[in-house]
Amino acid sequence: MSNNILQSIKSLSKLKTEGMYLNDFLLTWDKGDDEIEATFLTACILQSMRQNNISSRVFDSGLAVSIFRDQSTRTRFSFASACNLLGLAVQDLDEEKSQIAHGETVRETANMISFLAEIIGIRDDMYLGAGHTYMKEVAQAVEQGYQEGVLPQRPTLVNLQCDIDHPTQTMSDALHLVTHFGGSSKHGNPGKLGDVEHLKGKKIAMSWAYSPSYGKPLSVPQGVIGLMTRFGMEVVLAHPPGYNLMSEVEEIAAANSRTYGGSYTRVESMSEAFEDADIVYPKSWAPYAVMEERTRLLQEGDLEGLKSLEQRCLENNKKFIDWECTEDLMKTTRDGKALYMHCLPADISGVSCERGEVQASVFERYRVPQYFQAGYKPYIIAAMMLLSKFKEPVAKLAELVDRAQPRVR
Amino acid sequence: MSNNILQSIKSLSKLKTEGMYLNDFLLTWDKGDDEIEATFLTACILQSMRQNNISSRVFDSGLAVSIFRDQSTRTRFSFASACNLLGLAVQDLDEEKSQIAHGETVRETANMISFLAEIIGIRDDMYLGAGHTYMKEVAQAVEQGYQEGVLPQRPTLVNLQCDIDHPTQTMSDALHLVTHFGGSSKHGNPGKLGDVEHLKGKKIAMSWAYSPSYGKPLSVPQGVIGLMTRFGMEVVLAHPPGYNLMSEVEEIAAANSRTYGGSYTRVESMSEAFEDADIVYPKSWAPYAVMEERTRLLQEGDLEGLKSLEQRCLENNKKFIDWECTEDLMKTTRDGKALYMHCLPADISGVSCERGEVQASVFERYRVPQYFQAGYKPYIIAAMMLLSKFKEPVAKLAELVDRAQPRVR
Amino acid sequence: MSNNILQSIKSLSKLKTEGMYLNDFLLTWDKGDDEIEATFLTACILQSMRQNNISSRVFDSGLAVSIFRDQSTRTRFSFASACNLLGLAVQDLDEEKSQIAHGETVRETANMISFLAEIIGIRDDMYLGAGHTYMKEVAQAVEQGYQEGVLPQRPTLVNLQCDIDHPTQTMSDALHLVTHFGGSSKHGNPGKLGDVEHLKGKKIAMSWAYSPSYGKPLSVPQGVIGLMTRFGMEVVLAHPPGYNLMSEVEEIAAANSRTYGGSYTRVESMSEAFEDADIVYPKSWAPYAVMEERTRLLQEGDLEGLKSLEQRCLENNKKFIDWECTEDLMKTTRDGKALYMHCLPADISGVSCERGEVQASVFERYRVPQYFQAGYKPYIIAAMMLLSKFKEPVAKLAELVDRAQPRVR
Repeated sequence: MSNNILQSIKSLSKLKTEGMYLNDFLLTWDKGDDEIEATFLTACILQSMRQNNISSRVFDSGLAVSIFRDQSTRTRFSFASACNLLGLAVQDLDEEKSQIAHGETVRETANMISFLAEIIGIRDDMYLGAGHTYMKEVAQAVEQGYQEGVLPQRPTLVNLQCDIDHPTQTMSDALHLVTHFGGSSKHGNPGKLGDVEHLKGKKIAMSWAYSPSYGKPLSVPQGVIGLMTRFGMEVVLAHPPGYNLMSEVEEIAAANSRTYGGSYTRVESMSEAFEDADIVYPKSWAPYAVMEERTRLLQEGDLEGLKSLEQRCLENNKKFIDWECTEDLMKTTRDGKALYMHCLPADISGVSCERGEVQASVFERYRVPQYFQAGYKPYIIAAMMLLSKFKEPVAKLAELVDRAQPRVR
Repeated sequence: MSNNILQSIKSLSKLKTEGMYLNDFLLTWDKGDDEIEATFLTACILQSMRQNNISSRVFDSGLAVSIFRDQSTRTRFSFASACNLLGLAVQDLDEEKSQIAHGETVRETANMISFLAEIIGIRDDMYLGAGHTYMKEVAQAVEQGYQEGVLPQRPTLVNLQCDIDHPTQTMSDALHLVTHFGGSSKHGNPGKLGDVEHLKGKKIAMSWAYSPSYGKPLSVPQGVIGLMTRFGMEVVLAHPPGYNLMSEVEEIAAANSRTYGGSYTRVESMSEAFEDADIVYPKSWAPYAVMEERTRLLQEGDLEGLKSLEQRCLENNKKFIDWECTEDLMKTTRDGKALYMHCLPADISGVSCERGEVQASVFERYRVPQYFQAGYKPYIIAAMMLLSKFKEPVAKLAELVDRAQPRVR
Repeated sequence: MSNNILQSIKSLSKLKTEGMYLNDFLLTWDKGDDEIEATFLTACILQSMRQNNISSRVFDSGLAVSIFRDQSTRTRFSFASACNLLGLAVQDLDEEKSQIAHGETVRETANMISFLAEIIGIRDDMYLGAGHTYMKEVAQAVEQGYQEGVLPQRPTLVNLQCDIDHPTQTMSDALHLVTHFGGSSKHGNPGKLGDVEHLKGKKIAMSWAYSPSYGKPLSVPQGVIGLMTRFGMEVVLAHPPGYNLMSEVEEIAAANSRTYGGSYTRVESMSEAFEDADIVYPKSWAPYAVMEERTRLLQEGDLEGLKSLEQRCLENNKKFIDWECTEDLMKTTRDGKALYMHCLPADISGVSCERGEVQASVFERYRVPQYFQAGYKPYIIAAMMLLSKFKEPVAKLAELVDRAQPRVR
């Protein structure tokens, strides 16, 4: 089995990853093609190593800081798992009674928590226009601290979801696709990493879907159209009027489609998007204008306004209650067998709510593939971390495989 | 000193423990006699190893998930200690804003937190008829995930207290008894593990005691009668009318007493139970009917009803305020010297409350033995985990002793 | 570079540190001069080791317990960093629903959380007359538990701020001064540890400063005058009427100044204190009488009273709004170049508040030195822990350097 891993390490050695060293992973479109591929490869290598009981502890000690400005279970556990896999201990920053309002304090806090920190993972997806900005402020603060000699190492950031992108999710999604379409006979065998080439020409439908909840971030659909357009895929976005995404990201998707071949189009119904699709990704999100107003109300602390906004938004959602991923719709996809995807948890009709994003039978049929999809996240995060912390990741990985210290002793 | 450990490892090698591998520890009566004894032995071996500064880190990395659905200090620290002893990092699942209401979601959450998890520890003792059921659901979910290839390893469960049993407590209690009656001259010397045989014929009084609080779980008295009847002991349960335990567990206790010799009887006063007892375990718990109503009210979110129930229950408790472990009662035990036990914290008359479960002088006289009793819990938990994660625990332990990596370097 | 470290280890070997073994670090004035110097030296050695990628994991496994009875970010991360550096996992005790009201329960809780604990770090600075008392109770409880054989090791305490002293802060402050005045050309190079001798005769102004908040503990100014007077410094305390410190600590400062040379004086204006000062430490704290009343109100749970007290206190603070560390005042210091210090976070005029403790330009000019000052804290804490847990710290450190296990592998 080590042969397989060594093969992957050899592939990795052909990629240009110097730019990732001491750098942050905030948006996938900030990363070069080699860097994206290197992240997939490294994730697969780490997963294979674990499957072969080879320890990937590259740190004997060291801290990873997590800052969750929104509830999280999946990503929190993925981050903790990734840190543990590399040998880092997680220390969570609970901001409940801190004030991180202006640049000065962000800079100070960022330095104060980073004296022995190797990694900072941040989730900040509540405020439109704020999450990514905050992450950049933190990144600049620790970069400055490192340059000034205040910090003995440069802690690198991993975006655990912001207002613009959700790279640890969409990279896991993409790795799932690469594995699924790469010719491996069994899901979840990352040893047989299919080439990204296999995704060329595949049609993916990123569609809004009805949900009886409101305020879901736009970062997943944005991240999906921003990333999948890089693989020469036919990316179709569908949503009801008013549920548009940030135009900057749509422009990136469009530009990508020109660069990489494939296409980016927007349609106005789920059914149109699903037609002959190889992959469908039906998922709810809030209308852009609502997120903007919500951001303003949250910043003003206007609870009354928020309640009323939620009411109006839920009412508006209901107009599109038929945006549901049904068996009938699934039949219209490529051979009636498109791969159904969701970042989880999904609103499943008749299970977690009366009417939701997807029919129970569809969800259930794709339950296991979805779990595989989610299962890549710890390794994707670990890969992002490893590539940002080691100048020569290829040598480091080869050394780990060579040493072959058992994880379970 | 290693000789002593090697001796214990040799004893362990004679026991049948294959059934514990990749299996959960939910109820002591699900476990074979060899498995119970193996857990004691392994706990003692791990304790001796630590005393001799031999590391028992069997994991180079790996996660242990804790789910506490009720407040906990003692068990939380014991679990954290056990995980740390074996090399696992604890990641707590805070369910505060999650919905884990129906089977589907339990299955999903269980898998999502388990991608790199070796162990899942759960406390869920609030709802009668719910805690154990929930644990079984989680166990089935991760077993299925493992079978489907979603999870690269089978995380095994440790019951950190449910509505039926509290095995980490009662196993520590029993190990305390084994050590106490096993002829070792000093408490807390697990090297000299007395044989379970020494408990044969010993009389233990598991008695209800008055407390000015309400809603205490039934799992400790249930666990005690379910476990101690396996050692050929004379187990006597005493409680006021209405404070009965789950009849299923009483049936297990009765059946045990027939299988293993000894006896199981129920009496109606603390004084009758204490007569000539070798061990007394006076402890408060809620009336069964109250726990049932409380479960219903909690599920309905009926705060008014809960308040009124608490009032009525406390009133009812007061009728039995004389159920107190006094010096006078202690004099009626075997030679006036029964071993007093409590799972802690106790309601001590004149110390933590006006009138409680036990007189201060009794409690104080047995304070140190009780601390020893509590001190076994980290090792009992670590033993449960080790036996469930290693196919050949004997070889693994021998290897650890042989390697003799110092814990404090 | 190892030469430098070996040199420091040699210096350490000349100091008398036996008294620190299995002992707590609660107040700096409980420690001998050699012990203070040994803490500085060990902190520098650990920092140098990390800079040279030499692991200082002296524990293969082991727990460190933290008890934070007040909000903390800086100290929490410093403690977590220090524990991680030595190989300990942090387990936090959340007291929210515990009752630790009387001696009995403190003793029990202290033992219950300590079965596998090496270190207990406590912050308890809210109640005047309570924090230090509580720490001593915990220390006595675990000492007794250790003597009784309940605890296999003696967990040692680190005071992470009490009502009297804040030793991890003031020791970091002092190490900053030693490094700054020790002739090293660059801040933060602990390899070139200046001798404490360099501080002799230096004037430090510990001055109250205005802040629009209230209830800040007295432990930092108290800790500063209690520690800095040991280095033969000219220590000047300045505060408005009513903002006096505990008289016991002032007596210690005065006695120190007689023992070690230098002086301790109290003046009534910031400007007088600043004159020709080499170091200024302008910082807000609450009036002693207010802290006493606040303690009483908190204990009584008198929320109305607390609100009214806060109002009165803030009003009173405003009378001294001109107690601000301005550029003009800085000009009056030694050559206009005194080193500005703060334990952070500071109330910066025009940045974090309208009017505060310090002018923005002063704060900004000393920002980097302050970050260095804060950066010593993880190493100071690790040094306190290492010196309390190892009988022969010199041999242990030499062994670590000799083994030279890489921290980042």
